[in-house]
Amino acid sequence: MTNIAIVGASGYTGVELARLLVPHPGVKMTCLTSRQHAGLPFSEVFPSMRRQLDLVCDPVDIKLICSKADLVFTALPHKTAMEVVPLFLDAGKKVIDLSADYRLHDADLYADWYQPHSSPQLLQEAVYGLPELFRDKINGARLIANPGCYPTSVALALAPLLTQNSLDIDTLIIDSKSGVSGAGRVAKEGSLYCEVNESFKAYGVATHRHTPEIEQTLSELAGEKVTVSFTPHLLPVNRGILTTCYATLTPFMSTQTVLSLFEDYYVKEPFVRVLPVGMLPDVGYVRGSNYCDIGVVCDERTGRVVVVSAIDNLVKGAAGQAVQNMNILLGLEETTGLNQVGLFP
Amino acid sequence: MTNIAIVGASGYTGVELARLLVPHPGVKMTCLTSRQHAGLPFSEVFPSMRRQLDLVCDPVDIKLICSKADLVFTALPHKTAMEVVPLFLDAGKKVIDLSADYRLHDADLYADWYQPHSSPQLLQEAVYGLPELFRDKINGARLIANPGCYPTSVALALAPLLTQNSLDIDTLIIDSKSGVSGAGRVAKEGSLYCEVNESFKAYGVATHRHTPEIEQTLSELAGEKVTVSFTPHLLPVNRGILTTCYATLTPFMSTQTVLSLFEDYYVKEPFVRVLPVGMLPDVGYVRGSNYCDIGVVCDERTGRVVVVSAIDNLVKGAAGQAVQNMNILLGLEETTGLNQVGLFP
Amino acid sequence: MTNIAIVGASGYTGVELARLLVPHPGVKMTCLTSRQHAGLPFSEVFPSMRRQLDLVCDPVDIKLICSKADLVFTALPHKTAMEVVPLFLDAGKKVIDLSADYRLHDADLYADWYQPHSSPQLLQEAVYGLPELFRDKINGARLIANPGCYPTSVALALAPLLTQNSLDIDTLIIDSKSGVSGAGRVAKEGSLYCEVNESFKAYGVATHRHTPEIEQTLSELAGEKVTVSFTPHLLPVNRGILTTCYATLTPFMSTQTVLSLFEDYYVKEPFVRVLPVGMLPDVGYVRGSNYCDIGVVCDERTGRVVVVSAIDNLVKGAAGQAVQNMNILLGLEETTGLNQVGLFP
Amino acid sequence: MTNIAIVGASGYTGVELARLLVPHPGVKMTCLTSRQHAGLPFSEVFPSMRRQLDLVCDPVDIKLICSKADLVFTALPHKTAMEVVPLFLDAGKKVIDLSADYRLHDADLYADWYQPHSSPQLLQEAVYGLPELFRDKINGARLIANPGCYPTSVALALAPLLTQNSLDIDTLIIDSKSGVSGAGRVAKEGSLYCEVNESFKAYGVATHRHTPEIEQTLSELAGEKVTVSFTPHLLPVNRGILTTCYATLTPFMSTQTVLSLFEDYYVKEPFVRVLPVGMLPDVGYVRGSNYCDIGVVCDERTGRVVVVSAIDNLVKGAAGQAVQNMNILLGLEETTGLNQVGLFP
Repeated sequence: MTNIAIVGASGYTGVELARLLVPHPGVKMTCLTSRQHAGLPFSEVFPSMRRQLDLVCDPVDIKLICSKADLVFTALPHKTAMEVVPLFLDAGKKVIDLSADYRLHDADLYADWYQPHSSPQLLQEAVYGLPELFRDKINGARLIANPGCYPTSVALALAPLLTQNSLDIDTLIIDSKSGVSGAGRVAKEGSLYCEVNESFKAYGVATHRHTPEIEQTLSELAGEKVTVSFTPHLLPVNRGILTTCYATLTPFMSTQTVLSLFEDYYVKEPFVRVLPVGMLPDVGYVRGSNYCDIGVVCDERTGRVVVVSAIDNLVKGAAGQAVQNMNILLGLEETTGLNQVGLFP
Repeated sequence: MTNIAIVGASGYTGVELARLLVPHPGVKMTCLTSRQHAGLPFSEVFPSMRRQLDLVCDPVDIKLICSKADLVFTALPHKTAMEVVPLFLDAGKKVIDLSADYRLHDADLYADWYQPHSSPQLLQEAVYGLPELFRDKINGARLIANPGCYPTSVALALAPLLTQNSLDIDTLIIDSKSGVSGAGRVAKEGSLYCEVNESFKAYGVATHRHTPEIEQTLSELAGEKVTVSFTPHLLPVNRGILTTCYATLTPFMSTQTVLSLFEDYYVKEPFVRVLPVGMLPDVGYVRGSNYCDIGVVCDERTGRVVVVSAIDNLVKGAAGQAVQNMNILLGLEETTGLNQVGLFP
Repeated sequence: MTNIAIVGASGYTGVELARLLVPHPGVKMTCLTSRQHAGLPFSEVFPSMRRQLDLVCDPVDIKLICSKADLVFTALPHKTAMEVVPLFLDAGKKVIDLSADYRLHDADLYADWYQPHSSPQLLQEAVYGLPELFRDKINGARLIANPGCYPTSVALALAPLLTQNSLDIDTLIIDSKSGVSGAGRVAKEGSLYCEVNESFKAYGVATHRHTPEIEQTLSELAGEKVTVSFTPHLLPVNRGILTTCYATLTPFMSTQTVLSLFEDYYVKEPFVRVLPVGMLPDVGYVRGSNYCDIGVVCDERTGRVVVVSAIDNLVKGAAGQAVQNMNILLGLEETTGLNQVGLFP
Repeated sequence: MTNIAIVGASGYTGVELARLLVPHPGVKMTCLTSRQHAGLPFSEVFPSMRRQLDLVCDPVDIKLICSKADLVFTALPHKTAMEVVPLFLDAGKKVIDLSADYRLHDADLYADWYQPHSSPQLLQEAVYGLPELFRDKINGARLIANPGCYPTSVALALAPLLTQNSLDIDTLIIDSKSGVSGAGRVAKEGSLYCEVNESFKAYGVATHRHTPEIEQTLSELAGEKVTVSFTPHLLPVNRGILTTCYATLTPFMSTQTVLSLFEDYYVKEPFVRVLPVGMLPDVGYVRGSNYCDIGVVCDERTGRVVVVSAIDNLVKGAAGQAVQNMNILLGLEETTGLNQVGLFP
């Protein structure tokens, strides 16, 4: 039984990690930290946890955390994460970081989109924890950079075609829509109920910080530099990302052919569900589960393929994928604790 | 391992039963029926079930069902339920009926609020399956009448005070608000998204069919005839019932005193969470779980107690309670398969 | 043409006043203040106003405001309002105050529920601006206290019965449900989308500050001191209050009789719509309009009447009622600028 | 004062037409038809109309309608519309048809995407009523084909660039998201609250019937045949369409340059609001109004322009545009009755 700490547990990702780890048979949560709520029972911060988890929030005290846990999930904002991650590694802990701080391999690129990196030496060591694509590197790693929610939905949607060089990569357009929990449990005007409900908008067009992360993964898959148009939108739902990808097929193939290619690619993957011809994913059907659903339509009129993927941004897009990485790290069955059926309706 | 059939599986209660039973270690679903979708894989009717459940919908063929299952959940509309329940009993099956057909003990009362009953002889035998109040009768029963969603939320909110004769029962007012899934997966104008979203209304005022069921239970608890004002409202959420109960305390007690009384009453109950002074329940914190959260405020100015309860209408208000009853019937640990943490956000 | 200032225009009530006043033929907005956004075009704060209103937000500078406007709407938090209202009156301006600061007639009562009052001498002069009940006093007033949203929905629901002494006033229970805009455009965790969406709770049970305001009005109507149980709930919609009132009828009357009484009482009222037998209000049908819809059910079984009222909390519950008061003050037709049809769906 | 009939008034488009026409100073509604609700007061079908409109629903009786009205809005499903439109024209009435039946100029194309056309001779005469693009043809027409909601949002987003030949038309990708009212007031499972709420999906990928309408308009603007990828999505809001368009600029221009081009193009248009650099539209800010808001981002990294447009699908996407067309037809000021400020929040 491995002891687990969640650093930054009072955000939506933190409580989702707790939801998944409470019934997990292979680990035991022993430490949850929250700057804001230190001293308060976690189940007062999140009454959904009442009767399920009896921990009191700890302050972010590295020594304390290290004394309590063997593996640390850091669920902190970027920049804050890289202030503590090296300390946990130095103390001999394994770290699964859910921030953006260790996802990019290139410190200059990180500096371009975020700010200068304070532990650039770790960027090469950190493993990008998208198991369906990079499983081999995860096992044995000290530091896992848990992928972003948008990048997960994009990479899984495009991997089968990019690795086959079946796309004209200059034509890649990615139109994503995310639920509001992606913005975190932070009191700001733009996340207020009345601002989001009955509303819908694009944001961060051509400037969203997940763009370099997406391009890094797609470039690795394609074996050449990929530049994409990526447009996120804010969706009035609690959970879920739907990503619609467009690209020209080279050469054109039928929907059935492309779907066979996807089925082959993901045949052994427990968490990717390739939908049959005529079916398309809906975020409502992955709610609360670790699945990524993928549907495909090939359009003879335009020569393009449209790939649509759906995930729960808090599960496969964050906490669920982190637990999947943890299972691999700990040598457990990869699906342990991740068999939740989607909550529908 | 007991084989389980769900008759009427293509409604929201049916798919919720399936969600709870897929990971249940003590039983195996072997038959799901759907008049409308017979022949279709259940996971096409509900794509959330893809990879989780491999059954094809059966027609409502009693012989077939009996050949496949030992225990039958009937998740059918009232009246339709009583057409088939006796047939399953005659075939020696145990039945947990989620309709209203066997909840009232009195055939005349049933006739007053519904229509004439076709198997009145079963009304005395049927056990009202609210384990927190009637656990002793459930064990050994052939036919469990699974309580209605509103009545569950009301009975648990009022039992500790009624059994103590602490309320002036002539003053009982029950104001309930239910999510839309309570109306079922039936295509009707009133349940359309645009009719319900951004809307809120009372309905069935003084005439809702859960009224006699509520009064029957409250009368048993109080040991005298209870008549209530019960007003249901339609809440623009998928899941959840919040019930606000008002009554005059005899004599007046402080909030802390009443809460102690609740804590004592429910001290051994795994699914009732009595909240401390100053906290009130929110349907968002029981979403997807089998909990009933209860909060209390005593108002010295008016002499009244306000008891607020929250449940997920599809779990503790339907499928979860049905599984709880099944566990008791089968001699399993009562909480088996029911430890889901609420999905928040 | 009267020049109008809105002080505190960057809240939801402020923008709603602006929405109603832009097309109003009798007045001209000349000054909108916002501490936070001073110097910014109002249409950047609220892009819905683009092309409709060309004002730049002013700071809260009393002299400046007085130089620009003849009538001032103060849409500020309580306590902040009473810091500026006397200054506008001293400058000879008429004031319609949308805060709670001048609604209670009794300074001690105000101090009990809020804090000490800094201009208690104005409490007797201020007119409680609920035109359907106190129209005569509004004309000629200097200072109108615009009623709270909940109190408006309650007073209109109960006035016809209270003025007839048809209720046992000791039995009055008021269960209200309000949309989220009632909490204002303030960045706080409890108003975040993910906290409110798919959620529902009671709050401020037995302690909500609208209680004394409700009781003050009901007492005036009844001619004796009324004490009520008032329970507000937070409804996941942008706009709307639905209030469900319960009381014992003395003597009992049929639904039709009570409805006739309501129809007579409100026969000349342009903004109260009494619904026929069998119909109940829905907040979806008053959205964006100044109507208060009222439905009634009398329950012979319990001897109680259930009165349900629905308003848009930002219109009849705030800005619309304020404009109605303004029309009366200015000697305009009372309905001027208030004939919006509800936005459905 | 022109007398107006709305044929098919009991759908969401019908009630929205009524909402806009009630306060319209230049016309008078004299006839509303509804097969389903004939004989019922319109304000019982839509209680939002109570006190606002006193008509009783008529059956769809051509003679009756013609005796009552001079101008007819047909708000019927496609195919049903073309059964009655010629009859109104034969009777000398002007018709504004809100269905898809007269939007395509080519009967074969119509047959390919719908079914054979029963009055193909009218396709050449019918004027496509998008005033910003085809105003000159509307004046004097007998039959206006009111544009589809998606096509309106697309055409306005792309017209300034297409007419300048500034786009590589082979790269056009259109990703649209529509509120649920676009699916009509029809009781079907897919439009139920619990199916749509907290959900999001693409539908009709590469097959949606608005595709040929979009391509027809874009081809006219570009002066050459345009083929597009068009993907609609179902958005959990009552109202609103947000369309995100992607295309390669030829040659590349800065955001400011493209915005200037938009501002010039729409300088005289009362209902198109071009947003400044750094602002993007949100459907929440056009709710209930006839505006089309447009924002632009040019991405040097990809050489593409992203144009985002937002409309209220029931106003500028249907009823509002129909009233705009009516105003032109009747020689009224084009903005008459269409100056509603958006309802925010």
